[in-house]
Amino acid sequence: MAVNLAPPQAEDLYPVAGVELGFAEAGIRKAGRRDLMLMRLAPGSRVAGVFTQNSFAAAPVQICREHLRTGAIRALLVNAGNANCGTGATGLAAAQRSCVAVARELGCTPQEVLPFSTGVILEHLPVERIEAALPACVATLGADRWCEAASAIMTTDTVPKGSSRRVLIDGVSVTVTGIAKGVGMLQPNMATMLAYLATDAALPQDLLQHLVKEVADVSFNRVTVDGDTSTNDSFVLIATGQARLAAVSDRSGAQYALLRGALIEVAQQLAQSIARDGEGATKFITVNVAGAASEPEALAVARAIANSPLVKTALFASDPNLGRLLMAIGNAGVPDLDTSAVQLYLGDVHVIENGGRAAAYREEDGARVMAPAEISLRVELGRGTAATTVWTCDFSYEYVKINAEYRT
Amino acid sequence: MAVNLAPPQAEDLYPVAGVELGFAEAGIRKAGRRDLMLMRLAPGSRVAGVFTQNSFAAAPVQICREHLRTGAIRALLVNAGNANCGTGATGLAAAQRSCVAVARELGCTPQEVLPFSTGVILEHLPVERIEAALPACVATLGADRWCEAASAIMTTDTVPKGSSRRVLIDGVSVTVTGIAKGVGMLQPNMATMLAYLATDAALPQDLLQHLVKEVADVSFNRVTVDGDTSTNDSFVLIATGQARLAAVSDRSGAQYALLRGALIEVAQQLAQSIARDGEGATKFITVNVAGAASEPEALAVARAIANSPLVKTALFASDPNLGRLLMAIGNAGVPDLDTSAVQLYLGDVHVIENGGRAAAYREEDGARVMAPAEISLRVELGRGTAATTVWTCDFSYEYVKINAEYRT
Repeated sequence: MAVNLAPPQAEDLYPVAGVELGFAEAGIRKAGRRDLMLMRLAPGSRVAGVFTQNSFAAAPVQICREHLRTGAIRALLVNAGNANCGTGATGLAAAQRSCVAVARELGCTPQEVLPFSTGVILEHLPVERIEAALPACVATLGADRWCEAASAIMTTDTVPKGSSRRVLIDGVSVTVTGIAKGVGMLQPNMATMLAYLATDAALPQDLLQHLVKEVADVSFNRVTVDGDTSTNDSFVLIATGQARLAAVSDRSGAQYALLRGALIEVAQQLAQSIARDGEGATKFITVNVAGAASEPEALAVARAIANSPLVKTALFASDPNLGRLLMAIGNAGVPDLDTSAVQLYLGDVHVIENGGRAAAYREEDGARVMAPAEISLRVELGRGTAATTVWTCDFSYEYVKINAEYRT
Repeated sequence: MAVNLAPPQAEDLYPVAGVELGFAEAGIRKAGRRDLMLMRLAPGSRVAGVFTQNSFAAAPVQICREHLRTGAIRALLVNAGNANCGTGATGLAAAQRSCVAVARELGCTPQEVLPFSTGVILEHLPVERIEAALPACVATLGADRWCEAASAIMTTDTVPKGSSRRVLIDGVSVTVTGIAKGVGMLQPNMATMLAYLATDAALPQDLLQHLVKEVADVSFNRVTVDGDTSTNDSFVLIATGQARLAAVSDRSGAQYALLRGALIEVAQQLAQSIARDGEGATKFITVNVAGAASEPEALAVARAIANSPLVKTALFASDPNLGRLLMAIGNAGVPDLDTSAVQLYLGDVHVIENGGRAAAYREEDGARVMAPAEISLRVELGRGTAATTVWTCDFSYEYVKINAEYRT
């Protein structure tokens, strides 16, 4: 069960001028569920994306990278149930063919279509089922379909994930809305398992490309479920330019700061939703590391904690097992770490003081802060001023069950 | 339950001339179980060790490193139940005090004693209980106590681990006997969670130091249970020089090759025993990676597979989930990996051919090789001639249970 995560309602996700969404049941892996999502963008929209660093980047990821070189994108097509990864030339051809089908339906070129796939790896994409379902998908296109779109891209997700903000820039209300999916094989590196953010602000391509990385680095690149980076991770940022506002083109301006803030808020909420719905999650964990010599160092410590199976099973048990946390910090590969400077807080309780058990620590205080479904850990390394935050979940019996039975 | 792993019998573990072992119930963590082990070495014995790379190296590890600078060691003392880690100056003093107590009992100096601890982290070592139990430990000292010694160092181990070989060198029968413990918080880096190998051959200190690293790198450094490197990992190699054989001092000689071979056999069997008894293990997995550009590259790929929670849960389910294996290979960080050159074999079945599903692969063949309790994976990267092998186990419900309930 997801941790404190309710499905978004239609009124929660504001339409973004210039974006329409449709969905259909294509029967790609299982019949009777929505598994195809189409997003149509108004002419003039700009799109930027970041993608998985896994060597086996899926066929649609390879095609997205190619089509994004031009930046003129009119549609995004997403299928769930099949990842179209490890499928070689046949997989590339199938992804291309799906772009051709969309182009034919919408009256654009195949190069203006971005394809995305998520699901089982190493099986061929039944592209003919996508072609057959596309007209139904087009028939449902609407600006208020964000919730349905969020549902149509789910695989083992138990809750659809969406977030929305409005921000006033120069007196104009600008909208940012995003959806995401992904609950396992999840430690995004540059991006996450399918997330789409759209704004009606106008942005030049170079700034959009800069923003998509900046936003990913403080949101999707800071969440982990199991430490495994998917072959299909994709995070796409869309700027339709439909708001009655001049293009935001100055990175030092107030407009940019406001827009960037709204984008990060939406992206962080989506990233947190992913950890809340992590496979088998019973706890939502925030790991904050401060006092690091650099941000990569802070991230290494945060991930060493967040990905340790021993830490994650202790979190599942609500067990303040401080030794495992100490072990995880020590395994992050921080060069010449002065362990006697390390502090660790569980919630508001100082548990590790100068590298040892805090003098005032009492087990019942640790047990108290470990009991709730939301737990915060804070590490201070005492080496500098860099800091970062990572979100994750625990490892439960249910995690093993879900992943032992995934294909059966 | 451990996978195909029987406890060693007394006749399986040959005495090593110059080594005596004793044990006692010190009640360090729980009453009524053997938790203290003492090893007495004959004068002239040489000892070398490698230890954890975790920043929070335990107090006894710090003292071992110091005492090993001289190399003249007469005794090893091991306690289970408490790791004496994250215990600061008090912990160092407690470990020192245990050396003093052993020195008093055996008539040597404290610097000639190596202390080892394994168990719960961040709790103070009850050294007075060790002092109280030492006379009983000394009273049991005997050359044929290897089996009891293996039992006395266990924590969550379900089976004691020991291995022994005899090898004829220049007409003299030379013995190698070793014991080890460790089933969780286990991905040794330079060493493993407490392993002791002794031989009656004579070796100069520099060669012994070279050998301990060489042996560790093809045995304990190639096993992983959960990817978490313990704070107390220690692997010690002892050469008593009691065999009627000249010192083995030529690294290019046949004597060295024979002795090295026997040491590696014993160490590999112990390392494999650790994976077979990995926490919650139902499968014993051998991951072989060949065709790598370098050995670190081969190791990175092998560990990416062996530590992936998604791969480990699929192994638990006997599910030939090829996509997860592909994902794991792709996450090893191999620069510019040509995915179309990658081959993967499950047992004798070619499952991934040139980066995609093998044309002749049938699911029932994959299911057949995944069904047994022992599974072999072989990856060929097509980049060079380097290769390595890693041993691991699966992730089961029992793993979560053991680690969620460890302290309760």
